[in-house]
Amino acid sequence: VAAEFSMNLAIEQARTTGVGFVATRRSNHFGIAGYYAAMALEHGMIGLCGTNTGPIVAPTFGRTPMLGTNPLAIAAPTSMPPDFLLDMATSAVSGGKLQVAIRAGKPVPHGWGIDATGADSADPGAILAHGALLPLGSFEPLSSYKGFGLAMVVEILAGVLGGGVFGPDVIALTKPQRAGHANVSHVFGAIDIGRFLPLQDFRARMDAWLDAIRSAPRAPGADRIYVPGEKEWELEARHHATGVPLMPPVVEALQAMAARLRVSMPSPVAATGERDA
Amino acid sequence: VAAEFSMNLAIEQARTTGVGFVATRRSNHFGIAGYYAAMALEHGMIGLCGTNTGPIVAPTFGRTPMLGTNPLAIAAPTSMPPDFLLDMATSAVSGGKLQVAIRAGKPVPHGWGIDATGADSADPGAILAHGALLPLGSFEPLSSYKGFGLAMVVEILAGVLGGGVFGPDVIALTKPQRAGHANVSHVFGAIDIGRFLPLQDFRARMDAWLDAIRSAPRAPGADRIYVPGEKEWELEARHHATGVPLMPPVVEALQAMAARLRVSMPSPVAATGERDA
Repeated sequence: VAAEFSMNLAIEQARTTGVGFVATRRSNHFGIAGYYAAMALEHGMIGLCGTNTGPIVAPTFGRTPMLGTNPLAIAAPTSMPPDFLLDMATSAVSGGKLQVAIRAGKPVPHGWGIDATGADSADPGAILAHGALLPLGSFEPLSSYKGFGLAMVVEILAGVLGGGVFGPDVIALTKPQRAGHANVSHVFGAIDIGRFLPLQDFRARMDAWLDAIRSAPRAPGADRIYVPGEKEWELEARHHATGVPLMPPVVEALQAMAARLRVSMPSPVAATGERDA
Repeated sequence: VAAEFSMNLAIEQARTTGVGFVATRRSNHFGIAGYYAAMALEHGMIGLCGTNTGPIVAPTFGRTPMLGTNPLAIAAPTSMPPDFLLDMATSAVSGGKLQVAIRAGKPVPHGWGIDATGADSADPGAILAHGALLPLGSFEPLSSYKGFGLAMVVEILAGVLGGGVFGPDVIALTKPQRAGHANVSHVFGAIDIGRFLPLQDFRARMDAWLDAIRSAPRAPGADRIYVPGEKEWELEARHHATGVPLMPPVVEALQAMAARLRVSMPSPVAATGERDA
């Protein structure tokens, strides 16, 4: 609720003055950063959204969590769907990817995280429980200070500018003893494209640009070049057509909740074998 | 000249409406992105600057240059120097790092670039002449699509929004046959901190945040955690005290230019052994 209100406020500001930025404090997990950035699209605007999260990422040359995965999302309109939508954790990967690996009992690639001693680790359990994720770039020779710096930029625009708590003071909801209010901060931005050039021109330029990227020569073994947001848009279209795949424990939890609240729940159809974690 | 004018315009807009964004087209190499972002600091503002550059970076799953190194800089004020200043190419490394390796006759780490076939390469000459740099993240399992997406964001805010050329149409000044006007586009942004919270509070919060990062537990073998801009600030202070080290070919080129233009040039002092590439 707070995030939707704030993004609408940024859009309203941008309509008035060309650009709007809103920082929001004392909030909770707002779901998907890209959802709010994309709210700007139907208004002919570029949208931006970022949030801090509970500490789980170590700074370059550090070994303990001092930053959240601090996702950043930017949306820009095209003429033909999908629109451009980059939605990324500023860490090498999000915590969710490690949780999937834990459930699957598999190691993770080197460069995702470190253990309690600060050593590179392939054990997702050790990384999440006692270590830390690494910033985008992973290693110092691959410029991990850039992912670290970007996480700080999101923190500065959200927690510091918004007057909320920031850095290691944000509550990690993964720690049971601190369950409750996450006390996170967000930032929302909107840029009115029509103040710079006609919206139609911008859309046409985006189309040409994305097409050029998509049709560029491919790396060995690659069958396609995706632009940001394209994979997720295709997945959404597939789910609209064939339904949203849910894992059995999620279906069971929803059924139990429906029974407890005495509301009816659509019967799940048989699994097709497709599973999205 | 165009960049300084544009950043001043963004600052002026931010003074009036709280946030200002300016896109600039048909420009040339503007030097250091961080210089313009830092112009916002003395006005109590957060500064942002980005630029496209000649194509030298391959998209994730691509093998040819479709994007520039598209640097992005963000500055935010503290109470005590140094201010926060992140100034980063959105590629794994800048082209300059490969040129240094070529001069030194050394291989570069895997993850910096690819050769003409799209294969990972440690040969800086092959990367620059016929291959491409990789985006921040380097490899798909380490989320190189994020660096690729960030390079696109800079391109969207500069070249696409600014009405200039973009992507592979930007002229690569490294290609001699195209020497001349680079036809690059920039973006400049300023956010007036006082619209969000008292500037003194913001500065104090930044101080606390940066101190917490600096004093966090360190990784094995690391003797210090740097915050963005700190290393460069210390180097600048050292150069103010002891002079700017120049490599002999640079001194010779300046002396030749001074003689040709009949202006006097300060005599260089003896080299101290310190060399900054």
